[in-house]
Amino acid sequence: MASKSEMLDLTYLKDKRTEVDRLLDLYLPPVSKYPYRLHEAMRYSVLAGGKRIRPILALTAYEACGGNNPAIIGPASCALEIVHTYSLIHDDLPCMDDDDLRRGRPTLHKKFDEATAVLAGDALHVLSFKLMAQSGSIKVVHELADAIGTGGMLGGQMADVEAEGKENTIDQIRFIHSHKTGALLRGSARIGAILANCDDSELARITDYGEKIGLAFQIIDDVLDVEGEQDKLGKKVGSDSRNQKATYPAVVGIERARKEAHQLLADAIDISQSLNGNGERFVLIAKFIGQRDS
Amino acid sequence: MASKSEMLDLTYLKDKRTEVDRLLDLYLPPVSKYPYRLHEAMRYSVLAGGKRIRPILALTAYEACGGNNPAIIGPASCALEIVHTYSLIHDDLPCMDDDDLRRGRPTLHKKFDEATAVLAGDALHVLSFKLMAQSGSIKVVHELADAIGTGGMLGGQMADVEAEGKENTIDQIRFIHSHKTGALLRGSARIGAILANCDDSELARITDYGEKIGLAFQIIDDVLDVEGEQDKLGKKVGSDSRNQKATYPAVVGIERARKEAHQLLADAIDISQSLNGNGERFVLIAKFIGQRDS
Repeated sequence: MASKSEMLDLTYLKDKRTEVDRLLDLYLPPVSKYPYRLHEAMRYSVLAGGKRIRPILALTAYEACGGNNPAIIGPASCALEIVHTYSLIHDDLPCMDDDDLRRGRPTLHKKFDEATAVLAGDALHVLSFKLMAQSGSIKVVHELADAIGTGGMLGGQMADVEAEGKENTIDQIRFIHSHKTGALLRGSARIGAILANCDDSELARITDYGEKIGLAFQIIDDVLDVEGEQDKLGKKVGSDSRNQKATYPAVVGIERARKEAHQLLADAIDISQSLNGNGERFVLIAKFIGQRDS
Repeated sequence: MASKSEMLDLTYLKDKRTEVDRLLDLYLPPVSKYPYRLHEAMRYSVLAGGKRIRPILALTAYEACGGNNPAIIGPASCALEIVHTYSLIHDDLPCMDDDDLRRGRPTLHKKFDEATAVLAGDALHVLSFKLMAQSGSIKVVHELADAIGTGGMLGGQMADVEAEGKENTIDQIRFIHSHKTGALLRGSARIGAILANCDDSELARITDYGEKIGLAFQIIDDVLDVEGEQDKLGKKVGSDSRNQKATYPAVVGIERARKEAHQLLADAIDISQSLNGNGERFVLIAKFIGQRDS
């Protein structure tokens, strides 16, 4: 595990992020094309910046497993960022978390309007399947659907809504986090590996890695909502507590939350050592998640 | 074209509808499975009845083109009804059409709540891609994405939202209708044909047929909103006019609207005659759309 003080060489992540940003711009429909407003809204949300962790995970797993065809992994990896953005847009809606700020800018329904936000979320959702299908593999279309369906992300979102304002056990929070956030991160790593035709044992290890960092990612999100800086986060801190959200710190306290996240990342780093080729890239991603302040 | 007085033998449509209802029940996640509330909401909306025109169109095209594998067309045809239901749920939301009644029952956000309606719509959206992928054909995943993306249904929905309360030309209304409703009906016929490996000229005719009945279907919807009966429709009549929606009757009057719908259906029936095998089933579907009162 990287301590806060360990300096990480982030060149790899920055390069990949630049590449992902370029592809996202390419795959999103242009504003010059009708329906203008819908395309503008989609681009506003997707191109607002972001760490691009999900596409980077897919790219890293793909390359680690020997994949080398940008025409396959390009659209598939961007599909993962696009589906993530759709989930944020719908999550921010007044009837959901009712958030005004995202990535330092007004949320989509604030900048445009609620109807446009519902439709732009839906449009990104479709686009993610369109791009995933461009990989030519029906297997990863299934993977995406499983990661974001009621057995994955949407199941976690529903549980999250239902848990608000209630007493929750740590098992319930773990369910919410591993589904709402974990399932898509895990799915991203798996999709990269599957597209590179990795073998079953390698896929099992990558799945395990994805699961650990997926859960850690959301616990750290909870911790940052308590002690992060609004300027860096680009969204209001303390909103979980105000909204009586089910979080790790609320149930086990901030210290135990941080400790569990770090243990999960340490486990992920252990798994990285056993992965074929480019294990150090998986280590870097885990360490980066541990150090993130936004 | 069938006049109102012509008695149609609806046995074929009823049999197919029964089969589709059985499959929908099978493919929807059970209420006994967590997240219970989300699964309950999905089933509430999909199993509320409905004409099942989209799956029937797909089944009819599939069989007309020689397809005979229920394991392929079953999930694909149900995907079309499920994606249609998702679009109705999101369309009914307070920030969209704000409708309280659908198929004679409270709309989903009225029966449950808004957050659940957003998530259940999203969950049906994912499920439709999952089922479409079960056909094993990446081609029809693309077809579905094209039919419901910003170049299809969602483009029409956005245009519809933007057109509210404005003066609209007949070309604008035609764009809205052919995209918002037409694209998925056209796509349903195409998906059935593609899954049966039909040849290009047959696909072109089926596409043409789907386009005609797709536009006619929405014009008749507009007409029913003016002069239909609430009990039969299962939703409030006159809501288009109250909401200042862009409709055919609003722009060209009820008589010309009815005339254009009937002309489109007459054209669709002409095309049916030129289709290989089961042409009479396509004729029946067109006549049924012309006679529908719900």
